[in-house]
Amino acid sequence: MSKGLTSRSEDYSQWYNELVAKADLAEHSAVRGCMVIKPYGYSIWEKMQAVLDQKFKETGHSNAYFPLFIPKSFFSKEASHVDGFATECAVVTHYRLKNDGSGNIIVDEDAKLEEELIVRPTSETIIWNTYKGWIQSYRDLPILVNQWANVVRWEMRTRLFLRTAEFLWQEGHTAHATAEEAIAETEQMLDVYADFAENWMALPVVKGKKTANERFAGALDTYCIEALMQDGKALQAGTSHFLGQNFAKAFDVKFTSKEGKQEFVWATSWGVSTRLMGALIMAHSDDSGLVLPPKLAPIQVVIVPIYKGEEELAKISEAVDVIIKDLKKKGISVKYDDRDTQRPGFKFAEYELKGVPVRLAMGGRDLENNTVELARRDTKTKETVSRDGIADKIELLLEEIQQNIYHKALQFRIENTRKVDSYDDFKKALDETPGFIAAHWDGTSETEAKIKEETKATIRCIPLNNEQEEGVCMVTGKPSSQRVLFARAY
Amino acid sequence: MSKGLTSRSEDYSQWYNELVAKADLAEHSAVRGCMVIKPYGYSIWEKMQAVLDQKFKETGHSNAYFPLFIPKSFFSKEASHVDGFATECAVVTHYRLKNDGSGNIIVDEDAKLEEELIVRPTSETIIWNTYKGWIQSYRDLPILVNQWANVVRWEMRTRLFLRTAEFLWQEGHTAHATAEEAIAETEQMLDVYADFAENWMALPVVKGKKTANERFAGALDTYCIEALMQDGKALQAGTSHFLGQNFAKAFDVKFTSKEGKQEFVWATSWGVSTRLMGALIMAHSDDSGLVLPPKLAPIQVVIVPIYKGEEELAKISEAVDVIIKDLKKKGISVKYDDRDTQRPGFKFAEYELKGVPVRLAMGGRDLENNTVELARRDTKTKETVSRDGIADKIELLLEEIQQNIYHKALQFRIENTRKVDSYDDFKKALDETPGFIAAHWDGTSETEAKIKEETKATIRCIPLNNEQEEGVCMVTGKPSSQRVLFARAY
Repeated sequence: MSKGLTSRSEDYSQWYNELVAKADLAEHSAVRGCMVIKPYGYSIWEKMQAVLDQKFKETGHSNAYFPLFIPKSFFSKEASHVDGFATECAVVTHYRLKNDGSGNIIVDEDAKLEEELIVRPTSETIIWNTYKGWIQSYRDLPILVNQWANVVRWEMRTRLFLRTAEFLWQEGHTAHATAEEAIAETEQMLDVYADFAENWMALPVVKGKKTANERFAGALDTYCIEALMQDGKALQAGTSHFLGQNFAKAFDVKFTSKEGKQEFVWATSWGVSTRLMGALIMAHSDDSGLVLPPKLAPIQVVIVPIYKGEEELAKISEAVDVIIKDLKKKGISVKYDDRDTQRPGFKFAEYELKGVPVRLAMGGRDLENNTVELARRDTKTKETVSRDGIADKIELLLEEIQQNIYHKALQFRIENTRKVDSYDDFKKALDETPGFIAAHWDGTSETEAKIKEETKATIRCIPLNNEQEEGVCMVTGKPSSQRVLFARAY
Repeated sequence: MSKGLTSRSEDYSQWYNELVAKADLAEHSAVRGCMVIKPYGYSIWEKMQAVLDQKFKETGHSNAYFPLFIPKSFFSKEASHVDGFATECAVVTHYRLKNDGSGNIIVDEDAKLEEELIVRPTSETIIWNTYKGWIQSYRDLPILVNQWANVVRWEMRTRLFLRTAEFLWQEGHTAHATAEEAIAETEQMLDVYADFAENWMALPVVKGKKTANERFAGALDTYCIEALMQDGKALQAGTSHFLGQNFAKAFDVKFTSKEGKQEFVWATSWGVSTRLMGALIMAHSDDSGLVLPPKLAPIQVVIVPIYKGEEELAKISEAVDVIIKDLKKKGISVKYDDRDTQRPGFKFAEYELKGVPVRLAMGGRDLENNTVELARRDTKTKETVSRDGIADKIELLLEEIQQNIYHKALQFRIENTRKVDSYDDFKKALDETPGFIAAHWDGTSETEAKIKEETKATIRCIPLNNEQEEGVCMVTGKPSSQRVLFARAY
């Protein structure tokens, strides 16, 4: 708290790292690439989990739990899947350590596994191997299961929340009798994610499909939600995959249809992760710290007393109690910080850093005047208001803040989404005014790869319900019927 | 559902295995020792988690998340800890697979880790290494943190829920300025566990301390709750450890006290796991299936229509709707099973197997008479009752069932706890009337080890507030001032 943050304009990346540390969200651990999610950071993640979990259950899903480990041979069964995940995984080879006799703890070579186990990078293979035992007839379908779990992908360059070797996520895995039903599920879960991003995280997202190059390893179609961060880089915030019959075929999962025929089962999978924490932080926060949307803020209102002596504090605390009770009645979370070890200014800075949406301060004059000082985190404005009906006022204000944060992010995205028609303008825009770029592309993987190679920009998605527009590919000049969304991305 | 369960008297172990499978609670996975927790089993675990999590928060704890992996060297830092866990752990040695050129997926020897990583069997070491960075002064204390996580202990003989290589648990890890405060925390969390076991799981437990032999690796004192299963074997249902300054010393975690002195921090850890599922199943269930205490039952009331033709079903459904609304208003979870693919008798057996506390059945005559058939799972009794005030009646009945299940288990424990004074009687009791045996012991590890070796019985605990009674050790004849609780155990 003693020093301020590096500003976003000075060094966005440094600003992010400092903010994650200073707001007590997470830190690097002693294990390369693995993070410690600190209590304040975890309490935000818990709020996200609770909302998502409820949405999954409302759409008919149940939670279950599958093994952390996946036998190596399972990866070979789905060809593209192994290419996608084998190059970045943690491999368990032994099941025992021993003392070498001189006090050193070493791996016991007598305890080598017959088949190596992979720490799950994603669970399609172990789950479809399990579903084989659950599915015989169309009566066993659909299976609508979700898992909250940790997964490991051995990333070499890591950043807290955005890219870590271990991360927390949920992965939905569903099984269906028809392709139509599986596609409908894939689309439904994309809608659930978009709804969560926009209405809870206050994060506007573009719903779209990935190109073949950017698809999940093993999917026929990958749907995604893409968001724009304040530095103009895109962030993939969630994906929903239509897996076709690929995993059913790999693990021989068939069912007897109503007509008595043996058919392979259709699959989907969909997930969001602690990466959403990174998106939440980067989309809204400012040079003073976090800005949290009220619906996900662990503390929605903080109250700080400003007093001289115990007697005044007692009177203030009495008046504050009334406010606290009224706020709690409305389900608003409130913290009263009457610590005597820190000055009010220190506390103000701390809650600003931690993104608490509304701060009340009450001093001797407020006591006399039946007022309280009310400060908004999002606009950094404050005013002195009457305490009459203060809980109602705050309830409305939290709604307003939620809306304001969303609209600010939406406005930013609108201003930073550009149509570009030449490859030169495209490159210039990437460097000078980063953001989403809507451009024509000839639809080939080769052109997409060339653009990525030359500019580090990728096709974030082909937006759903995309406007059809005749044009020519900015690189090859070949005909194109729609613009796709490019950006450099996290 | 087609075949019944093996009875408990015939083969208790087989009964348990069949019940876990047939009630859709869990199954073995393709990975040796790792289980799949199926949706119905997981929904019970979720209820347990929700209650415990709230209790942890009410006692001031926050959740956080620490890495899955622990560097091998960390295990060497706390001497007894390495002995306790090194012989049964999953070791990650590589971080990449590769294609060997002929299509086989093999471990890439170029991707060997410099230091092996252990999949956490428990997290004291990685957490205390982290706490070192969090604690400087007494102002940073206490730290009251809990983690919900998966852990791995390489068990060679596994049983679903009771002993699996991977299991789910929570582990609390707290840091304190004084020994007194840490001991108070250890005892508080034992009380939380006992309260949860008795008032939610309906499982009577004995609170006690472990002997030195049975302590957690690295603890100065291990407190536990011990429960008795229907086959007379004991099950340790939760532990709370006073760790002294062992981990603070191992990881050099000191704080500046109020008096300005540098002191090592005092620690506790405490945990319960998916093993509780095993206890819940074994304590209450019968030869017809699960018996769930209403407070943890995912479905508290199931309603089955008994009808001839669509028209009658429509009328029944209309009457059932009223009941459902009234039950939901009271927060009672209810399922209406109007599937037309199964007969009522099949459904009755299914919900009996799954332990649904209350079953209502409504047929044509009930429609006419304004009645419903009400069946209790715990007593297997049924009666036809008026539908007037049915929701109130069920609300009271659920309370009564909760109490009844608890008292039945308590009565069983009382009847199966015996005082024994000679070693011969002790051995005879173990074989003929298994249960808790209260006997005198000379207090030495040698005698305890001899008894374990010769009878497979262990000292489950030295009960808290134990009655002091002069006696002599049943094995050595040496003086003893109290009886301790022996049993064979899971």
